[in-house]
Amino acid sequence: MKVRVHVSLKPGVLDPQGRAVHHALEGLGFTGVQDVRVGRLIELEVADDTTDATLDDMCRRLLANGVVENYRVERV
Amino acid sequence: MKVRVHVSLKPGVLDPQGRAVHHALEGLGFTGVQDVRVGRLIELEVADDTTDATLDDMCRRLLANGVVENYRVERV
Repeated sequence: MKVRVHVSLKPGVLDPQGRAVHHALEGLGFTGVQDVRVGRLIELEVADDTTDATLDDMCRRLLANGVVENYRVERV
Repeated sequence: MKVRVHVSLKPGVLDPQGRAVHHALEGLGFTGVQDVRVGRLIELEVADDTTDATLDDMCRRLLANGVVENYRVERV
């Protein structure tokens, strides 16, 4: 089974990578960009009987940093 | 308007970060994980009249490396 984990910084947490991308887009002449945030997209191939609780456990223990990041698990 | 750009490595391209995560999950006792790939999730706040062509241009010129990465644009 394929699972996608979307990890993004919580609102209010400073995102230097996002700011750099924002700046670079402006430098390339793209106007109208108001904000850029960069997160991670983790695609896992797991056993079909993997429970939601196990996936959540993976996120909390390794894939996301709960202090500054939100995550969302999506079964594909 | 909010836009999400999903950037992932093309199949066949070596993903050391994904392998490290895979290894770490096994080390934590999670069994049944067959594969892990790590990509980027870029969230942009852009002007409402931004066209698909402009978004595609941003991806090709800055957000994704077309040689080794695929990207998908999603309007939220």
